[in-house]
Amino acid sequence: MEKGTKKKCTVRFEPSGLKTEVPTGTVLLEAAHQAGIYLSSICGGDGYCGKCKVIIDSSEAVQRRPTALLTPDEIRQNVLLACQSQVLSDVTVTVPPSHCLEKNQILMDANAHRFSELAGDVPAEGFEYDPLVRKIYVEMSAPTVHDHTADHERLYLAIREKIDAPIMQTGFRILQKLPALLTKGDYKATVTIGRRGQTTEVIEVEAGNHSTRNFAVAVDLGTTTVVAHLVDLTNTTTVDTEATYNSQINFGEDYIRRIIYAEENDAFDEMQNRIVHDVNGLIVTLAERSRIDLQEIAAVICSGNTAMVHFLLNLDPRRIRREPYVASASFVPPIRAAEAGIQINKRGLLYCLPSVAAYVGSDIVAGVLTTRLFAKRGVCLFVDIGTNGEVVLGNRDWLVCASSSAGPAFEGSSVKHGMRAGAGAIERLSILEDGSVKFKTIGDDPPVGICGSGLLDTLAELFVNGLIDRTGRFTAGTSDNTHLSESDEGLQFQLVPPIDGHHEIVITQADIDNLVRSKAGVFAAIKILMVSTQTKPEDLKAIYLAGGFGNFLNVRQAVTIGMLPDVPVEKIHFVGNTSIAGAKVVLLSRQALEAAEKIAGSMAYFDLMSHPDYMDEFIRARFLPHTDLSLFPSVQKINRRYDT
Amino acid sequence: MEKGTKKKCTVRFEPSGLKTEVPTGTVLLEAAHQAGIYLSSICGGDGYCGKCKVIIDSSEAVQRRPTALLTPDEIRQNVLLACQSQVLSDVTVTVPPSHCLEKNQILMDANAHRFSELAGDVPAEGFEYDPLVRKIYVEMSAPTVHDHTADHERLYLAIREKIDAPIMQTGFRILQKLPALLTKGDYKATVTIGRRGQTTEVIEVEAGNHSTRNFAVAVDLGTTTVVAHLVDLTNTTTVDTEATYNSQINFGEDYIRRIIYAEENDAFDEMQNRIVHDVNGLIVTLAERSRIDLQEIAAVICSGNTAMVHFLLNLDPRRIRREPYVASASFVPPIRAAEAGIQINKRGLLYCLPSVAAYVGSDIVAGVLTTRLFAKRGVCLFVDIGTNGEVVLGNRDWLVCASSSAGPAFEGSSVKHGMRAGAGAIERLSILEDGSVKFKTIGDDPPVGICGSGLLDTLAELFVNGLIDRTGRFTAGTSDNTHLSESDEGLQFQLVPPIDGHHEIVITQADIDNLVRSKAGVFAAIKILMVSTQTKPEDLKAIYLAGGFGNFLNVRQAVTIGMLPDVPVEKIHFVGNTSIAGAKVVLLSRQALEAAEKIAGSMAYFDLMSHPDYMDEFIRARFLPHTDLSLFPSVQKINRRYDT
Repeated sequence: MEKGTKKKCTVRFEPSGLKTEVPTGTVLLEAAHQAGIYLSSICGGDGYCGKCKVIIDSSEAVQRRPTALLTPDEIRQNVLLACQSQVLSDVTVTVPPSHCLEKNQILMDANAHRFSELAGDVPAEGFEYDPLVRKIYVEMSAPTVHDHTADHERLYLAIREKIDAPIMQTGFRILQKLPALLTKGDYKATVTIGRRGQTTEVIEVEAGNHSTRNFAVAVDLGTTTVVAHLVDLTNTTTVDTEATYNSQINFGEDYIRRIIYAEENDAFDEMQNRIVHDVNGLIVTLAERSRIDLQEIAAVICSGNTAMVHFLLNLDPRRIRREPYVASASFVPPIRAAEAGIQINKRGLLYCLPSVAAYVGSDIVAGVLTTRLFAKRGVCLFVDIGTNGEVVLGNRDWLVCASSSAGPAFEGSSVKHGMRAGAGAIERLSILEDGSVKFKTIGDDPPVGICGSGLLDTLAELFVNGLIDRTGRFTAGTSDNTHLSESDEGLQFQLVPPIDGHHEIVITQADIDNLVRSKAGVFAAIKILMVSTQTKPEDLKAIYLAGGFGNFLNVRQAVTIGMLPDVPVEKIHFVGNTSIAGAKVVLLSRQALEAAEKIAGSMAYFDLMSHPDYMDEFIRARFLPHTDLSLFPSVQKINRRYDT
Repeated sequence: MEKGTKKKCTVRFEPSGLKTEVPTGTVLLEAAHQAGIYLSSICGGDGYCGKCKVIIDSSEAVQRRPTALLTPDEIRQNVLLACQSQVLSDVTVTVPPSHCLEKNQILMDANAHRFSELAGDVPAEGFEYDPLVRKIYVEMSAPTVHDHTADHERLYLAIREKIDAPIMQTGFRILQKLPALLTKGDYKATVTIGRRGQTTEVIEVEAGNHSTRNFAVAVDLGTTTVVAHLVDLTNTTTVDTEATYNSQINFGEDYIRRIIYAEENDAFDEMQNRIVHDVNGLIVTLAERSRIDLQEIAAVICSGNTAMVHFLLNLDPRRIRREPYVASASFVPPIRAAEAGIQINKRGLLYCLPSVAAYVGSDIVAGVLTTRLFAKRGVCLFVDIGTNGEVVLGNRDWLVCASSSAGPAFEGSSVKHGMRAGAGAIERLSILEDGSVKFKTIGDDPPVGICGSGLLDTLAELFVNGLIDRTGRFTAGTSDNTHLSESDEGLQFQLVPPIDGHHEIVITQADIDNLVRSKAGVFAAIKILMVSTQTKPEDLKAIYLAGGFGNFLNVRQAVTIGMLPDVPVEKIHFVGNTSIAGAKVVLLSRQALEAAEKIAGSMAYFDLMSHPDYMDEFIRARFLPHTDLSLFPSVQKINRRYDT
């Protein structure tokens, strides 16, 4: 050991070939970050999630802390946890593809890109076209001795002939350059205006007609994936889409971890820098690809959970994770994008959709908006499965919501071979009567892991086929099943044998427990809201299921495992990424923003953590489908078929 | 001559003792400026106003251009025009007190200070107390699990319990620090809010109660004098007042000259720097004297002519002086004071009262507001005599206005011994039957010159006593008058003989011509407005005369010379500096701002320069009191008494 000497070591990462130089003693996770490699890390570097496994070429090159998360086999193969290892000398590190989010490949990442496409062009149904920012071409008459109206007021008069803008404001810099611009353009000018609440701001003035070039970017600030859509505001089309992984990810996979990390390391600026960097990267890519100047993008609109919005704006997020769980702001006023470091037109605006509470963010408001839950006559349910499971119940008269912090199992986290919906992820799976497994991967690539929809299938199929019992335990009767084996981590079911050099894909008892816990949290939240509002399953006119599952979600399975109430399957609609869809609708219609504000302001939030019945409901829901089978008559029927 | 060598010369100015080093060949006016001496200069350095006369100790030390503005006597006494002289070697320059505005003495300048006091505490008569900026102390309940309202919305709720603020906005920086502040103060906080049109902005948030410390500064941006009043917004009192000379003055005494200078020398930034420097100097002095931290000043409100407001904000003023004479902005939105370089609370606001046109500025709107012309049932006339003579006629139903560019004679400019209303200025004057002159000076100091009210008296008394005829010519019958003498410049009347080493004070034929021209311009403007609106003198319920005349203006004399219509003297009110008074009223009442906006927006502007009758009216008014004596029956009576 050469600890203490500050020799520099070269750390090379494969397969990317990215290199970095670090002083002896540097933690490998940090070295990776420095090289631009984003390793998965749920625990934020605390050494207990086991997600940052990498392989080194020489066991002498690092100093590792003991861990129970590595099998003897893994230790022999020089596998280690990057967060628990310090670099001692030059070393080459191989990063398993499933654990790596390489910065350089992010923008071309087909997986993320694919996810972004889940939300197509959502028409601003029911909302009037009136974008938050727009370019208006105005032709004014030049002043004469008989018409000496000042330039500023002349411009206002011209704008008001075109749009409804009783309250207007103009920035000082615009005012200063206005006379020169109007003179230059012979009093023909393009005005970019932005809506700030009831106020209409003159964001930019250009000589001549540039009104056909008016773009904005809608962003879904996901905890895992950041998605951006470039929108042509003149005709409402989505020009292009792009996505990237949230580069905060190696500070923790869920936002609570990230808040803790930021608090302990005074890293709020760093958190902001990362997410801003991600958003800027997306914008630049979109702009370059469509040959748009950044100056032609006059607005960015963001939707996301409350913590992500706080990180983006560097608003204090600490009390989001502490009783009484409050946000700094639920209604963030539009600001100049440059103030947050977002690189568009230097006077362009950054909008954030309003949120409801610390655990019900603007992404959920966007969901309610997109599904038009807020306008329905009959009671509907909206469920968004992500890191948390947020639930909204209601109609045009009332809306209630809650957030279950049951964990991100259906996002692939806390599941051994879980992964995000990306290339090679098993997105559909069925178990045949002979116990063999049929599956389909995204992109038909060789299987790498299982994404949300695949996990839903897996749990349902194991259950329906009697391979697990109602408590989620592997059944005794399956002990002769050749797919079932005992590992260091307990019983596990092999879904896919090793093929073409790819590792086998299994589901472990711990995975099943996590999935059951996750679905139980969601169902308990739904139950609390339904009981509180005296809503019966038969009252539900529709269920909207949102999240990054995979394109071919079999929604029936969500009922089978008892995650969603037992309603006819045709009432359940998978709606994909409603966060970005809602952001786009708002971007295109001031009415939609007003609706979003009304939704956020009027939705009643149920704090489950302090709710007296939540724990009981949660425990009851930790059975498949539930302790109370009468709640799931359709499942009772299926199950009986296999039980006999 | 040593032209071409770049030797440095030391120029010392007396009596201040200020020194500077300049290269050989530097124009003396520039050297003075560099030393911090502000010399009067009407022509902006073009060499024809003759106002920058100084005396040098050695005729060899400078190179002078020939000029007709110096008498042989003056040339012998080493008097020269600073703008027409280049420094050749070390020199000592004596600046006559009446020509010098020393930077270092400005803040203590009794003259300017005195002028500032002409506008006392004007109560916000008829307007509701609702300051544009205010501090509100709010006590909120801290969030609980049952009340998870975000900090930002919690604050809004608390503010709205105290004041009417349907539309609110908060700056990004405030939002960022809000949670820490609220937590620190246990949700007891002082909020500084500012009105921006219909929007209420949260300017500042402080923990605890600081609501008793709430100050703002009202500024009158005069072309000659800048006046500032420190106002305690909690109780509407004027805490202190201060004034300074506008340090743009050596770029020209009227603003047209300054615009030309700025345009020719690309000196718009310099123009802004000067006026901003003046305003900042006043604010610092006021704050220090009252032991107020600049952070406790949350707003500055400015009133002034359109050009001065443009200079302050560095808005392009060039078209103010060119057909079609338009402003960049008549309604300047509130901006952050820091954006214009004004040093108060760094998030404090700068308001500018709205103006009507290029030649009818916000000072005139302030006058209409202060005199409540806009609310009168009967028709009233408002006349502001400054560099221009602005005239407003109207009542609560209609308002018309015009500006006569007849020159600043009554401000003391273009009059040989004219001066501003300051110590030693003759402010009252009468000529006895024996031709001897009785006078009173400001501060009862030895006479130095004649200010506006004294000039009015002089013109009227010369006329009433038959010393000048109705064309303003010295009468033949007075040629035996011992006070009358022939000088290089023609006939002149000695008002004060040389006393105690002070020079004699005379009024020349040229002075009289300038004064008559000036009053003729004002009367012609009034006439045009009255004829256009079919208003007869007997219809006038009141005349309000504003300007920096001197405290003891004999308004009757304004009728005698034919500047104001012939109405009973009790109808004429001298109202002093209504510009600063109006600014203060607006500062204290949002209603007043709305009234000012309505006034500025609805007042009809008559462009006299393009008016077909103006020149005729002007020529008719160049008689004393007028060609048409029937317009001045009361003057006809007086005059007759002396004519007999």
